[in-house]
Amino acid sequence: MLVGGTHYKTIWREGQIIHLIDQTLLPFRFSIARYNDYRDLCTSIRSMTIRGAGAIGAAAGYAMALAFAESEKTHMPSLVTIAKKEIESTRPTARNLFFATEKVWERGKEGAAAAMAEADRLAAENEADALAIGEYGMALMFDGITINTHCNAGWLGFVDWGSALAPIFLARRRGLKVFVYVDETRPRLQGARLTAWELKNEGIDHTIVPDHAGAWLFKNKQVDLVITGADRIAMNGDVANKIGTCEKAIVAKALGIPFYVAAPLSTFDPECPNGDHIPIEHRNEEEVLKIDGMKDNCHIANITIANPGSPAINPAFDVTPANLITGLITERGIIRPNKTQISKLLSKP
Amino acid sequence: MLVGGTHYKTIWREGQIIHLIDQTLLPFRFSIARYNDYRDLCTSIRSMTIRGAGAIGAAAGYAMALAFAESEKTHMPSLVTIAKKEIESTRPTARNLFFATEKVWERGKEGAAAAMAEADRLAAENEADALAIGEYGMALMFDGITINTHCNAGWLGFVDWGSALAPIFLARRRGLKVFVYVDETRPRLQGARLTAWELKNEGIDHTIVPDHAGAWLFKNKQVDLVITGADRIAMNGDVANKIGTCEKAIVAKALGIPFYVAAPLSTFDPECPNGDHIPIEHRNEEEVLKIDGMKDNCHIANITIANPGSPAINPAFDVTPANLITGLITERGIIRPNKTQISKLLSKP
Repeated sequence: MLVGGTHYKTIWREGQIIHLIDQTLLPFRFSIARYNDYRDLCTSIRSMTIRGAGAIGAAAGYAMALAFAESEKTHMPSLVTIAKKEIESTRPTARNLFFATEKVWERGKEGAAAAMAEADRLAAENEADALAIGEYGMALMFDGITINTHCNAGWLGFVDWGSALAPIFLARRRGLKVFVYVDETRPRLQGARLTAWELKNEGIDHTIVPDHAGAWLFKNKQVDLVITGADRIAMNGDVANKIGTCEKAIVAKALGIPFYVAAPLSTFDPECPNGDHIPIEHRNEEEVLKIDGMKDNCHIANITIANPGSPAINPAFDVTPANLITGLITERGIIRPNKTQISKLLSKP
Repeated sequence: MLVGGTHYKTIWREGQIIHLIDQTLLPFRFSIARYNDYRDLCTSIRSMTIRGAGAIGAAAGYAMALAFAESEKTHMPSLVTIAKKEIESTRPTARNLFFATEKVWERGKEGAAAAMAEADRLAAENEADALAIGEYGMALMFDGITINTHCNAGWLGFVDWGSALAPIFLARRRGLKVFVYVDETRPRLQGARLTAWELKNEGIDHTIVPDHAGAWLFKNKQVDLVITGADRIAMNGDVANKIGTCEKAIVAKALGIPFYVAAPLSTFDPECPNGDHIPIEHRNEEEVLKIDGMKDNCHIANITIANPGSPAINPAFDVTPANLITGLITERGIIRPNKTQISKLLSKP
């Protein structure tokens, strides 16, 4: 995707150094973070310097590959086992993370070079899958369409293209008029900050919406459909995604708005029969009680915005039951969210 | 209500000077604003220095009374007509505002002293109504109850006691254990700032919740009921209240949580057959795109928190259809939200 005319990916490798766009600084500052130690990459996942299911997957793949390289160099074979545990403990909900650590773990048995090649392959596949999701999602697009999206499932959430936003980017590039209502997505404001930034860079008309204005929006504005991403999809079609997704899906269903979820197969969890089995990450209450922002060209962090001394809860994800989801947009086509269709999709070679 | 051990009301009169708690500075600074010109009181309503349907009503009553006094002093009878229009243009949604301007307008025909007496009477009635709402609402309370509320319909939203929070305050004072999940209520954060502050002052256990976490909350925590306030209630029981209320009511209905609205009769609009006729205020997009807060004991305003250059929508209210509301808690009892019961209630002497 383009940033001020230059093409970037969310994460890429140069030699043994992993480069990634620091998403905690966007949209206010565009800065590249560089890591050659898996531990630092773990910290970057935990702190959301890199975030979004697809991008977390790519980062976890590279973190595993860096661990294999360190293990080979220091002759400490046990290091990769420790590293795998540490990487997998960074963020529990995104399936893509575990998908990547397992893949690199397997290939790493052939040595560190093979592990790095596998991490590269996963990153390339991540980008290709996202583009394919965009192509299949194009079936839902039309000139003048208005879409509501939650959080950021754009190119920053993947290596490139994104999931929910991929069809939107493609539609725009192919000359269709698209308008996007972007949920601001408290507490980290990934919608107001990342999705709005991506859409502005791509010249797509959009407006930021307070998260709980969904019912007002669906009743008072023409919204043709909702598309969100996913962090983990169970075999029955239940979807874990950013907190607020389930609420939005309930409201969309009640008001007759189609609700789509876009995700690659690496987000589907074959071990997970339904949403009850998806672990939900709880993050620090400080994310709700404090905020950061820009004033007079200075970045200010740790600004208290709530009543001092009042606690907050901060579940990072919720589970949307399959019966609220119109369809799942994958790199192999759009399917209904049920066990039969998901099993069929995953079993294809 | 108590603020650090001292009893305060949200708004009160001393001579010709109207005193009110500046709600734009809470919870960070407790400060009393003083006005003796109706124009400044209009500005304070518009800027939300005073806010909440009941408190707006009391302020509007005093603004009318100040206009009558000025009119009498300057021998400009036309001034009150101009003043009434200006007062009624400050915030279009809250019915209580028009209720108050009309009442004081009528009594003002007998002179400025009568107008001020009427404004005093309305303020006292406002407080008494809120306490009566609390008493009737006690029927829903029990030891160990957990309640979710949206925005602030506490004592700051009235002269005292509040609507949605009145039964909660009473229950606590009578020794019942109550727990409140407080929606933070973007963009102005009246939940995280005002409701949380009130509950902390009254020693009531509570936790702040991101607005769109309602579905997660209802599924994962024991929530016995939702209570919100109202800015205007139509004759069929449709309720205009803070943006997000309708979304919350849809989710509560879908997940089987009783949803109550608490409001005095002055919030009911006899001229309004249903919610489609309620004017919805749209506020400046800057409220969504920027924020204020505290850092190192300094108040910082105008902090940009969204992507620079991206627009936002900021509807201040939405309309919840009557069929999503379990009951209306009024100063004359709890009724079902339908035309028969509302007409009967309003026609009682």
